[in-house]
Amino acid sequence: MGKCSNHSDRETSFLCLKYNIYMCEECLQCRDPEIYCKFRSSCPIWFIDKRQKDWDREARAQEEVKTFKVIFKPEEREISVPEGSTLLDAAIAADVHINASCNGKGSCGKCKLILESGNIKSEPTTLLSDQEKAKNYILACQTKVLGDVTVKIPEETIERKLKVAGMGQEATDRFKGLVKDIQPMLIEIPLELEPPTLDDSSSDLDRLNRGLKKTGCCDVDRLSVGIKVMRELATAMREENWNVTASVMRKKCSNEILNVRPDNGQEKSLGLAMDVGTTSIVVCLVDMTDGSIIAATSGHNSQSACGDDVINRIVCAEKDGVAKLSRMALSTINNLINEALDSVDGDFKDIKNVVISGNTTMTHLLLKIEPRYIRREPYIPSVSEFPILKAGNIGIKANPIAAVFIMPGPASYVGGDIVSGMIYSGLHREESLTLFIDVGTNGEIVLGNNDWLMTASCSAGPAFEGGGIRWGMRAEEGAIEKVSIDPETLEPTFSTVGNVSPRGICGSGMIDLISEMLLTGIIGQDGKYKIDQNHIRMKQDGEDLAYIIAFADETPMQEDIVFTEIDIHSLMLSKGAVYAGFMVLLEQAGLDFSMIDRILISGGFGQYLNVEKAITIGLLPDIDHDKFQYLGNSSIAGAYMALLSDYYRKEAIKVSNNMTYIDFSSNSRFMDEFTSALFLPHTNLNAFPSVKIK
Amino acid sequence: MGKCSNHSDRETSFLCLKYNIYMCEECLQCRDPEIYCKFRSSCPIWFIDKRQKDWDREARAQEEVKTFKVIFKPEEREISVPEGSTLLDAAIAADVHINASCNGKGSCGKCKLILESGNIKSEPTTLLSDQEKAKNYILACQTKVLGDVTVKIPEETIERKLKVAGMGQEATDRFKGLVKDIQPMLIEIPLELEPPTLDDSSSDLDRLNRGLKKTGCCDVDRLSVGIKVMRELATAMREENWNVTASVMRKKCSNEILNVRPDNGQEKSLGLAMDVGTTSIVVCLVDMTDGSIIAATSGHNSQSACGDDVINRIVCAEKDGVAKLSRMALSTINNLINEALDSVDGDFKDIKNVVISGNTTMTHLLLKIEPRYIRREPYIPSVSEFPILKAGNIGIKANPIAAVFIMPGPASYVGGDIVSGMIYSGLHREESLTLFIDVGTNGEIVLGNNDWLMTASCSAGPAFEGGGIRWGMRAEEGAIEKVSIDPETLEPTFSTVGNVSPRGICGSGMIDLISEMLLTGIIGQDGKYKIDQNHIRMKQDGEDLAYIIAFADETPMQEDIVFTEIDIHSLMLSKGAVYAGFMVLLEQAGLDFSMIDRILISGGFGQYLNVEKAITIGLLPDIDHDKFQYLGNSSIAGAYMALLSDYYRKEAIKVSNNMTYIDFSSNSRFMDEFTSALFLPHTNLNAFPSVKIK
Repeated sequence: MGKCSNHSDRETSFLCLKYNIYMCEECLQCRDPEIYCKFRSSCPIWFIDKRQKDWDREARAQEEVKTFKVIFKPEEREISVPEGSTLLDAAIAADVHINASCNGKGSCGKCKLILESGNIKSEPTTLLSDQEKAKNYILACQTKVLGDVTVKIPEETIERKLKVAGMGQEATDRFKGLVKDIQPMLIEIPLELEPPTLDDSSSDLDRLNRGLKKTGCCDVDRLSVGIKVMRELATAMREENWNVTASVMRKKCSNEILNVRPDNGQEKSLGLAMDVGTTSIVVCLVDMTDGSIIAATSGHNSQSACGDDVINRIVCAEKDGVAKLSRMALSTINNLINEALDSVDGDFKDIKNVVISGNTTMTHLLLKIEPRYIRREPYIPSVSEFPILKAGNIGIKANPIAAVFIMPGPASYVGGDIVSGMIYSGLHREESLTLFIDVGTNGEIVLGNNDWLMTASCSAGPAFEGGGIRWGMRAEEGAIEKVSIDPETLEPTFSTVGNVSPRGICGSGMIDLISEMLLTGIIGQDGKYKIDQNHIRMKQDGEDLAYIIAFADETPMQEDIVFTEIDIHSLMLSKGAVYAGFMVLLEQAGLDFSMIDRILISGGFGQYLNVEKAITIGLLPDIDHDKFQYLGNSSIAGAYMALLSDYYRKEAIKVSNNMTYIDFSSNSRFMDEFTSALFLPHTNLNAFPSVKIK
Repeated sequence: MGKCSNHSDRETSFLCLKYNIYMCEECLQCRDPEIYCKFRSSCPIWFIDKRQKDWDREARAQEEVKTFKVIFKPEEREISVPEGSTLLDAAIAADVHINASCNGKGSCGKCKLILESGNIKSEPTTLLSDQEKAKNYILACQTKVLGDVTVKIPEETIERKLKVAGMGQEATDRFKGLVKDIQPMLIEIPLELEPPTLDDSSSDLDRLNRGLKKTGCCDVDRLSVGIKVMRELATAMREENWNVTASVMRKKCSNEILNVRPDNGQEKSLGLAMDVGTTSIVVCLVDMTDGSIIAATSGHNSQSACGDDVINRIVCAEKDGVAKLSRMALSTINNLINEALDSVDGDFKDIKNVVISGNTTMTHLLLKIEPRYIRREPYIPSVSEFPILKAGNIGIKANPIAAVFIMPGPASYVGGDIVSGMIYSGLHREESLTLFIDVGTNGEIVLGNNDWLMTASCSAGPAFEGGGIRWGMRAEEGAIEKVSIDPETLEPTFSTVGNVSPRGICGSGMIDLISEMLLTGIIGQDGKYKIDQNHIRMKQDGEDLAYIIAFADETPMQEDIVFTEIDIHSLMLSKGAVYAGFMVLLEQAGLDFSMIDRILISGGFGQYLNVEKAITIGLLPDIDHDKFQYLGNSSIAGAYMALLSDYYRKEAIKVSNNMTYIDFSSNSRFMDEFTSALFLPHTNLNAFPSVKIK
């Protein structure tokens, strides 16, 4: 039966078929939507008539827990929460997106809100400036609700539309020709069957199997069928005079008839390729008949309210139950699917094939598979190769019988997204020795060719995605993405995503900035500020020295956007980890950089990356610039290929199984290399001959 | 999602996991247990607190339907039903067992009750004697509830314990040695796994598969796994230090890991072999380690309230939805399972393998598979060969992951119970030409040997089981089972099941009676009474002439038990159909009775059968008595063999596929033979040389 979705220690009695939520008896009886159902606003069960309100009142009276109303402006979203809830809890419940990098620990200071009215209690924090405090700024995770509250989400906290580059027509063009022969997992086979007679009185199911056998579509002897299909078979077969369409799922070791519908006419068949990242999720809606991408959407993984990195997500899953994290990811995914469908006036029932590419933690959380051992030595995932699942069983908004392929991942910290990258790049098909890197919330590296594959993960941390950086942010609207600094005046020139006023700085902007600061002598090789502290661009930010990239009057928040020494240090740790990863992996293979034929850079981050500047700070090795190639989001590209092709699905499993994973966590060579790399560009300057430091 | 269990035309929103009932929104909201849930008395959801009553009151007020209380004595069962319900509906809802042979049409007169008090409205009926009317007898199906009512179930209507011969120790002895090598469908494999290390960091699932592969228990490459197991895997594997037991279901074309539990110690493993008959259901609880039968129970199929024969059951399913019939059968089955478990202090979770043998209609109804085309030309079942199912998916009280094998059946009117008979008798394994008959509610025949198998069904009707016979009943306590008549005085001598006062007459008693009446000249070869209508044993029963078997003062009902001319005619139709079946099947094979090496008689009915008397009335052919052999309940025996052996499960599928079904419904030779057989013993007396008629 499984456990209650709200109380993981209780047996369930009911299953909400609409939202796939298991409920214990208390949940069913209480029916207090604020407490028990995340989907209340669209649920026909909970909000039906006045009885609902009576139950709520009664339930509340019985439990003697007061609830208060919280209104989030500017969207005026309203939610009731029990007394003592944090505003972050309220935001999660109201589906109001707030960034909380540190998982509510109160250490990142990102979940800022402005209190308009109401009774609250805030913990003291040093993460708000006096100026902010004067404006009634509070931190959502550090503030408890003690009465009805109205808060406003400030400009800098509102999440903007993610820039999803290379999707839509661009992607159709980029992906065109990648797959020649389209073979979905769930195939639809139109059949014109012989009606039965007294002399040919075999059962309906036997007749169907006979028809399927004739088409040669699949091995009928290895064909199974479920109870639901058996129940509906007789009616379906007779409705359109023995013309039917059978939906058959081709699985690893058998095939299964999942549906039989009357009429053998053509029905639309859509597919979904998805990249479920720690930070952002990309959804491509694909026409399965020709492989064209008819819509693409992307958004922030709403799990962000539980922290920026996979470790925080796992901690949260251990605390609150993995179902919570699954629901959060599904909420983002299903909203993106809706958005994609709406844009082409599509119907979710037409979606019959789905491929999900994501890192190991993301797939575990999404499928509600126990993730806790991923973060504990010896770092073991529950599952690396997944059976083909049904969308209805995992909560994806698609036809409930849609086949779902989860990209396999070789290890806890090298997941299906990297295998997708292999499939798309074809690294494992070519002789040339290739280094593949994907720097997202984590940094993964693959080294190899058609003979062998080695892979490793270096805990780069979320700095490149804005995590733990004072004004760090993702590549959203308003993010500073390019920076240059005048060597004479030390004045910066920058451009932002969307060409609007700057709201923060993203990964590529940080790399530019540090590289420019190093070359102009603002900082030294140790990452410390060298110039006069009284320079117009320098200021004290709390106890930290900082360079002002944009003055308050240039920004919508009316605050200086600065880059502190601590920020520089965070970024040096990240780049050092990636570079150390390269070094150790090469060493293990007995190679050096000169033997590398090409370096493939994957991930949304790579797109805006200035290779020269990345070399300057020692993130990338100092080799011929022509050997670098930017792949774009290879996770979504590989998912797209696997969606259309059985060949690539099998190849993915093979590649995943053939990758040799090197664990750095207990590798002393990695620690040595890491320490050597905590310098700009590196303690061994000989390795960076092209970097000329003033 | 499936349809609402209460409203077959509605989509469901909720699934009650406890009772496996689908509910639409109205059902869930209404929560009126009288209307919507059959299981209310034991359901923790419905009866919880005063709110339940408020809801009931509110729901009733809204619907403006009055409900009244009905009490059934002597057990004092109480139920509330809406105004206008029949007492038969009330009995079904209260789980009070009442026989209603005609499915509530008011034509059989079996559902007698005695009104003690209350406001009712009865339709006029000729099926109650004036004497009965004077005693306040009413027919449950013809009486509507218009106020609170108290009724008593009269002696003759109370269903007695079925006599299940040959079960328990007897069956263990009989079945001993049938299966040498026990191979369950769901096997439990204890494993001692290597704990993971940094150098051996494969995923938990890969580790489990590796362990399974080592044991050689099953083909790991064809092993699938469900989402539930993946979710629980990590915890289960670590709980007892990497010692686990995997439950693997061996299916036709793949294997599936259904459960992984910590600890690799031995757990009990029980199995269920079941014979689900139209009239009665037999359940054997088997110890899977040695094949011994540790408990056996049997009872009336509670579908009887919807009619005696499969046609009435299908009609009822079409009217009220197949889910109702499924629930009725499951209620009997699960009560019998409970009874069997209680008798040995067993736990239903230990039941991990189940085999169900039943006719095609019974299996369709049980599994809620559309049965309507079984009764419509060209008589097509939905499914003849079933995949292995899980107990939890079909509502059988066993471990939810228990593997359920349904005996395959070759045709709409030759089902899995007959295939079971083949497996047990071994007819298809031997050279000798054998005729197999099973006369239950229907009559099925198989003719053949190890080369070929022909089968047919003759609509014998339910007369041999008491259906449509004035005082007919099943072989329960009080049934007259043996009769002889003094040729001089024409006085009968009889014995009853359980040696108690006679309550009616069962199949073997009727055969004895007609044979004796024929030989003593009470009736002629045309089945009409020939003796003086004023004979002390003769009386007028309504408009019908009848022979008195037992006088009123000998019976607990204080009424004469009689056998009417219409009863004789009904029995002649039944025996004529069976004999015509023999003839046509032989003719189709180009054979005659002299070539038959043996005749196997199966079914509960056969046990008390006097072969000589059955020949006298022309039910069985007049051949060497030594060629007749009584098999007992071969349906349960075959189910038992399939429960223990993969070989027999595969053989069952092969046998079912190899049987050539001959349809009699449109066969003119059958009609000719049938007409010729409507005589005692037959129009062709030469075929019955041993029958000497006075």
